[in-house]
Amino acid sequence: MAQLRIALAQTNPTVGDLAANADLLVAWTRDAAEREAHLVVFTEMFLTGYPVEDLVLRTSFVDASIRTLEEVARRLDREGLGDLPVVVGYVDRAGLAPRVGQPRGAPLDAAALLHKGEVVTRTSKHHLPNYGVFDEYRYFVRGDRLPIFRLHGVDVAIAVCEDLWQEGGPVAVVGQAGAGLLVVPNASPYEKEKDDVRLELCARRAREAGCALVYVNQVGGQDELVFDGDSIVVDGSGELVARAGQFKEELLVVDLDLPVSDAPAGTFPYDAGDGSTITVDRLVLSADPVEPRPPVPARIAERLDPAAEVYSALVLAVRDYVTKNGFESVILGLSGGIDSALTATIASDAIGPSRVHVALMPSRYSSDHSLTDAEELVRRQGINARVVPIAEIVNAYEKEIDLSGLAAENLQARVRGMILMGLSNEHGHLVLTTGNKSELATGYSTLYGDSAGGFAPIKDVPKTMVWELSRWRNAHTDPSFLLDAEAPIPENSIAKEPSAELRPDQRDTDSLPPYEVLDRLLDDYVEKDMGSQELIAAGHDPALVTRVIRLVDLAEYKRRQYPPGPKITPKNFGRDRRLPITNRWRETTGPA
Amino acid sequence: MAQLRIALAQTNPTVGDLAANADLLVAWTRDAAEREAHLVVFTEMFLTGYPVEDLVLRTSFVDASIRTLEEVARRLDREGLGDLPVVVGYVDRAGLAPRVGQPRGAPLDAAALLHKGEVVTRTSKHHLPNYGVFDEYRYFVRGDRLPIFRLHGVDVAIAVCEDLWQEGGPVAVVGQAGAGLLVVPNASPYEKEKDDVRLELCARRAREAGCALVYVNQVGGQDELVFDGDSIVVDGSGELVARAGQFKEELLVVDLDLPVSDAPAGTFPYDAGDGSTITVDRLVLSADPVEPRPPVPARIAERLDPAAEVYSALVLAVRDYVTKNGFESVILGLSGGIDSALTATIASDAIGPSRVHVALMPSRYSSDHSLTDAEELVRRQGINARVVPIAEIVNAYEKEIDLSGLAAENLQARVRGMILMGLSNEHGHLVLTTGNKSELATGYSTLYGDSAGGFAPIKDVPKTMVWELSRWRNAHTDPSFLLDAEAPIPENSIAKEPSAELRPDQRDTDSLPPYEVLDRLLDDYVEKDMGSQELIAAGHDPALVTRVIRLVDLAEYKRRQYPPGPKITPKNFGRDRRLPITNRWRETTGPA
Repeated sequence: MAQLRIALAQTNPTVGDLAANADLLVAWTRDAAEREAHLVVFTEMFLTGYPVEDLVLRTSFVDASIRTLEEVARRLDREGLGDLPVVVGYVDRAGLAPRVGQPRGAPLDAAALLHKGEVVTRTSKHHLPNYGVFDEYRYFVRGDRLPIFRLHGVDVAIAVCEDLWQEGGPVAVVGQAGAGLLVVPNASPYEKEKDDVRLELCARRAREAGCALVYVNQVGGQDELVFDGDSIVVDGSGELVARAGQFKEELLVVDLDLPVSDAPAGTFPYDAGDGSTITVDRLVLSADPVEPRPPVPARIAERLDPAAEVYSALVLAVRDYVTKNGFESVILGLSGGIDSALTATIASDAIGPSRVHVALMPSRYSSDHSLTDAEELVRRQGINARVVPIAEIVNAYEKEIDLSGLAAENLQARVRGMILMGLSNEHGHLVLTTGNKSELATGYSTLYGDSAGGFAPIKDVPKTMVWELSRWRNAHTDPSFLLDAEAPIPENSIAKEPSAELRPDQRDTDSLPPYEVLDRLLDDYVEKDMGSQELIAAGHDPALVTRVIRLVDLAEYKRRQYPPGPKITPKNFGRDRRLPITNRWRETTGPA
Repeated sequence: MAQLRIALAQTNPTVGDLAANADLLVAWTRDAAEREAHLVVFTEMFLTGYPVEDLVLRTSFVDASIRTLEEVARRLDREGLGDLPVVVGYVDRAGLAPRVGQPRGAPLDAAALLHKGEVVTRTSKHHLPNYGVFDEYRYFVRGDRLPIFRLHGVDVAIAVCEDLWQEGGPVAVVGQAGAGLLVVPNASPYEKEKDDVRLELCARRAREAGCALVYVNQVGGQDELVFDGDSIVVDGSGELVARAGQFKEELLVVDLDLPVSDAPAGTFPYDAGDGSTITVDRLVLSADPVEPRPPVPARIAERLDPAAEVYSALVLAVRDYVTKNGFESVILGLSGGIDSALTATIASDAIGPSRVHVALMPSRYSSDHSLTDAEELVRRQGINARVVPIAEIVNAYEKEIDLSGLAAENLQARVRGMILMGLSNEHGHLVLTTGNKSELATGYSTLYGDSAGGFAPIKDVPKTMVWELSRWRNAHTDPSFLLDAEAPIPENSIAKEPSAELRPDQRDTDSLPPYEVLDRLLDDYVEKDMGSQELIAAGHDPALVTRVIRLVDLAEYKRRQYPPGPKITPKNFGRDRRLPITNRWRETTGPA
């Protein structure tokens, strides 16, 4: 056996900012060198950020990725870090002749080993995910090489992300070929309680590969995706050895005792067990084990509880959307209700209350507590507030056009949306929308009204979870939150009955069932894809099933125009649920 | 040789309306029987419509598709049409065990042969397109069977759509196994001048298959896609025999002299030449040739000229979006400029002028000709018009919030958008937006202002083509157009210099280069994906390249919130061009 000290660089790259990501790589490698690591492993497509969508189809972008990789290898060496091997993800190309249906330029979701100023070996993802939020058959061609490099006597194999999730392929080949360690760069988006799934997966694959496994995951927000980190090290029996925290950057350093190898170098084809052949590329960086050192204590970060986990995901998503897009501040409408109260609090935690602006926009139908509850939140958090009454503006419209019923209700919501957009354009704030997932699912919102804005922090949070997160936040904090306030949300905003206040004495329950009932039904219909018969068999009220399914199916168009927002569930509306708008299928009735 | 009379059912199904599509199938089959056809071929996924996106992942939907297929087979027989074989596309399932990454329920893009009340044989698409507007690895598993059925002595093979476009697979197997005719149901979306590409493809594949080829394509609008028909028959040497029209439903009937076969029935595996095995399933419906009849003259429809083709695509797209979604009428803002004039004309041609409503919304900055040109168009077309001045509404906002520069310009556009949305909500009109592709590409539009609406007829039409189409329409008509008016667009709207009129004496050229220059650059950057160095090498002004690329790259967020509109170019923004919003890559500068 030989000791290796591995550094897992759980980092937050910025999509497209190759220079900044290269700087991060150098800085973190220096940190790993200072902690005497023998190997640093970065995340999937770290140099480009992940996902880059159609950028990968541009020749100039792929050129820049390859050039940046080679430059950063030389730079590490120049800066005295060349002796420390680095595994890092980037985008490469396969050099295949063009053909119909093949992604332009035949890009690869690649990873490379950097050492002594050189790119020593390159590999790329074999299994391409094309489900949920992933479209990788659109973007990449599959890799068919598995590098195994000897480091201080230990054979280290490299596989990329999805190759862990599928049967057969690189992990199966590691099991046949034999290695002492499998390192896996990942960009695996957050979903509620996904950390349990990942640990089980890593344990199973380590047993299949017959060696310890190092799983390094990206952290940070990228449009609708949040990456949670949760990097993991398991030994060859699948036992958890070390684990990084969630939603924070971290250099996790771990000492592992690993078997030494003297297998010959060279290239060897293996049946990958999935109908394809994978070529193992064995090479030697250093054959002799290092002198063992007293191992550093392995850190196993505690898991966040469910509410803390979701709340932290939302804070990170907002922080990164704002800062990576270069905004200095945000603005939102504060109604006194719980959705805007929670959204303001998330924003304060994400970027600090001094950068959060709110507009209180009372109408003729606003109740007294709307203004007082909103003002109380402003006081507790110290955010920037202004009052903009909308009655005179609504009157001006109504002098020109006659609107009644829903059209008149929508007008009020739209006047508020336009005020926020005007203030955004004038002062450069990013507009946050405050709609929750239950509203979005059922279409209980106004297009170009409350749905107008640049980012939707709680678009994937059902209403019942909005209350849960609000109560949680009033009782907890975290050092990464930038708002320092006891119970930042007024109790009355949490306790009072929900109302859109767009007509006299309106209540959400005039149009929707109680949220406890609605959210359970939405979960079964949207997340679990149950059909109407299954829903009724599961105990949901048949009339309600018909009504809610109709609302959800008809609201598709509004959801298409909703701003991006962090994904926390399997079926966030947006990237991972796509229905035709023009569509006569109704789940409740079958063929109409 | 034996004669077969084939009917190509170039039809317009409605997505999700299985009952209505089944009715269409029966009606068209009756028509084919009256014209004494021996075989009717419908389009890909005709019973469900195409594309159905995530509906295909629902158990209840796939159940309904399979049930509808079996019911319609029995119904054809009950209605005396059972002797006429029908090939039709639908959705089936493969019955595979679930695994990570496989589409839920393992759906198949299937086609079946119906005869004497039975589903005689089933097949499904082998090659799944996953590029451009297609995401089929997300939705389907691949088929591996090729049915060849003997009809009056002639062996007829069935393949589906993409199987024509890729090398290897079913067409290659037809070449090995031998058949007298290959029939191919398709749902191939329109793109400018794609008809030339399809004919060349059909000719090449007929030669490879060694037999005549019948290519039947869907017609109609579906969200952002327009299907143009253009069904084709070629003989075994690739010569064009018959061709249906574009953008119209048509039952194209053709007599073919085809070789007879006595190959034994049974199942036979073949190497498909793409790494897979395809099983040929030979069966016999009827072994004896029919008595030859005097052949019907083969129709070869004339191709539309380029402007007629695009204009017809837009008219059909608007008609189907409006009617399939159940709207009775549309509304748009008429400015006196060319974009809204063309949009109104397309709408009048699509659904008739009596169902088109316009609002003239002059501001303090509107020039006299704005109102008079708009009024002239209203007079020529006989559409419904009202005038809603916006000055007092803008004043009401400005009393509450101070806005200057771009924020004040945007406010005016947004007030207009909100007026249209209010009238839409009150009266049930669908709002059409009037933005063109050049504006959309460069972000020269107001989010929630002129981009607010339900459908964007000219979102994929560059400004120079807006003028071209307007001139074309003033000089031409078509029997399918519902507007009966000479020169429906006022010449002044075509001739005058473009201006948004959001500040005094504003001209588009204050912010943008001349459209002739801009559109050429956009075509090279967007459609051809040329990088900045290539653009400069191609002769574009370097400063302009930098400026325009920056505009295009930064406008991604606005484009995400744009309503759907018909695709007419390879790179419509929306389904087939996807960039991250949060993204620091700049084509002009490389790593920033």
